[in-house]
Amino acid sequence: MSLMLQEITEQPVVLERTIREELSKVQRVGKLLRKKDIDLIVLAARGSSDNASLFGRYLLEITTGIPVSLSAPSVFTIYNSTLRLNRAVVIGVSQSGEGIDVNTVLQRAKECGAFTIGITNEPESSMTKIADETLLIHAGSEKAVAATKTYTGQMLHFYMLASALIDKKIPFERIPNFCAEALQLRSSVEQIVERYVFMENCVVVGRGLNYGNAYELALKLMETCYVVAERFSSADFFHGPLAIVERRFPVIMFAPCGVTKESNLLLLKRLRELKADCLSITNDAEVASLSSRHISMSTEIDEFLSPIPFIIPAQLFAALLAKAKGLNADAPRSLSKVTKTI
Amino acid sequence: MSLMLQEITEQPVVLERTIREELSKVQRVGKLLRKKDIDLIVLAARGSSDNASLFGRYLLEITTGIPVSLSAPSVFTIYNSTLRLNRAVVIGVSQSGEGIDVNTVLQRAKECGAFTIGITNEPESSMTKIADETLLIHAGSEKAVAATKTYTGQMLHFYMLASALIDKKIPFERIPNFCAEALQLRSSVEQIVERYVFMENCVVVGRGLNYGNAYELALKLMETCYVVAERFSSADFFHGPLAIVERRFPVIMFAPCGVTKESNLLLLKRLRELKADCLSITNDAEVASLSSRHISMSTEIDEFLSPIPFIIPAQLFAALLAKAKGLNADAPRSLSKVTKTI
Repeated sequence: MSLMLQEITEQPVVLERTIREELSKVQRVGKLLRKKDIDLIVLAARGSSDNASLFGRYLLEITTGIPVSLSAPSVFTIYNSTLRLNRAVVIGVSQSGEGIDVNTVLQRAKECGAFTIGITNEPESSMTKIADETLLIHAGSEKAVAATKTYTGQMLHFYMLASALIDKKIPFERIPNFCAEALQLRSSVEQIVERYVFMENCVVVGRGLNYGNAYELALKLMETCYVVAERFSSADFFHGPLAIVERRFPVIMFAPCGVTKESNLLLLKRLRELKADCLSITNDAEVASLSSRHISMSTEIDEFLSPIPFIIPAQLFAALLAKAKGLNADAPRSLSKVTKTI
Repeated sequence: MSLMLQEITEQPVVLERTIREELSKVQRVGKLLRKKDIDLIVLAARGSSDNASLFGRYLLEITTGIPVSLSAPSVFTIYNSTLRLNRAVVIGVSQSGEGIDVNTVLQRAKECGAFTIGITNEPESSMTKIADETLLIHAGSEKAVAATKTYTGQMLHFYMLASALIDKKIPFERIPNFCAEALQLRSSVEQIVERYVFMENCVVVGRGLNYGNAYELALKLMETCYVVAERFSSADFFHGPLAIVERRFPVIMFAPCGVTKESNLLLLKRLRELKADCLSITNDAEVASLSSRHISMSTEIDEFLSPIPFIIPAQLFAALLAKAKGLNADAPRSLSKVTKTI
């Protein structure tokens, strides 16, 4: 079994441990922030952590009403600018805690008057020395190049933080169980993968809270399967990119039951007209019936809690597709685990 | 000649007219905003307008120091949330002024206490009725489905607005001439296009102020040439996506001389090791010498003013590649001009 597959299966345990070990700290940080006059949250990250932050962006805006900006690190690292951040919380997200650009954003944001938080898996990393507060993912060492358990660990922290910021319960403690259930899909995902062994391009689509997942699955497919995978929201996809879709073009869609269904359904129907191949990860019967193939998630999962459990079969899909293509998911060509871009 | 090619050539005139007709209004709006306690700018857009906004995000942060957030429309349109925007300026950007989601963001932002601005090409559009102030692009009707002259017109407005917000001159009036010069590249672009007629996938890369251009060229290639075109910043490209690059894989890079050169050079050298095919749009001799092919821009163009002139040969590339592939750039399959997603 690849390290990647092994780490995928660890997720229910990692998530449960992270709640147990970190919840009281997150609540304390939330309480502290509620007392401040915060009117902006900035998230700084790269790679999979940036995809988790894209989820965090939606979650935090929807729940707290505080506007969120995804940081453009080069504003600091290349253009050497100063930003008005005296009423901002700046959150750096990095598995290793060693991303130079993300740490530079934290450092410079502090100098600009921001309160800073680091979310990382490494308690001794540089990030923990820079940030005012550190929230840890208790994933154990992540050995696979393709991040999985730290990605969902980061997402979980956004749920805990959102809950603490609004001082209202979010039932995130249900998530580890949803993930354990999702892991049972492995053999059905393995069957579906057969259909996609010769896929060279695809588009991954998600909306709202699942938009970050579209980026994350696309990244996994690029890293481990060398598939040229585009990622769009189902809204943006209509603005031009739809033209690349031809008969049998593969589209993978995160389509939970709930508020984003209408938008996804609109796209799904258009894709059927174009005779595209649509694989959906869904717990909605109508979506499933309109898809070429679907991965069936539990109907107990509300859209609001769907992003973490819904990425599990997607991670399995990437890891198993790599295997079916005869590739080693743990040794993607041209990559290393820690990327220190400026 | 396609409508798209025709509209590409109109850009120097459109830009000059837009400066002449709008500058005093933009200065008045800037003065008004300087008196307010603004600590956030939100940009709301879709498609090409969203790519112009991605440029605007960097430009406004770098010049004004006010943090910028690119709006996630679904926070309003799907999740029906309320955001703290009482110290924010929210700018909607839409060629037609009829994007339902963008207009909803403006409407809801107003209700949340934001000052709102619309940037559009249509003086009678719905957007102008919603926004507190409207900045017009004087492009004349844009008939091609693939936006070109309104894209650069929107970018120009961000320069004018940035200049007004900091009450400092930015030499944007040089841009129309740079564009006229860039249009002279047509025959050399036409020759280069021959090499890419059978290209099916590619990656477009840009950094900082040219990051939005990477998105824009990728969108043009998807819309008019049906190429599956990925877009990354040269920093993000190292975080995973690099794995898709194999021998002869085409990468197109916006690489002006200046502060982003080091980052682009790092990627360019790595791409050479991987024997990728790199086409760069550049005015730097070192970048040119390391590229498989290059489009040569004037060395008079500073990185800060490069984004508008540098997109011109990229637009030509997409329009001429469509022609060379035997496609009609004015009639992309599956698309219509005005997209009214929610």
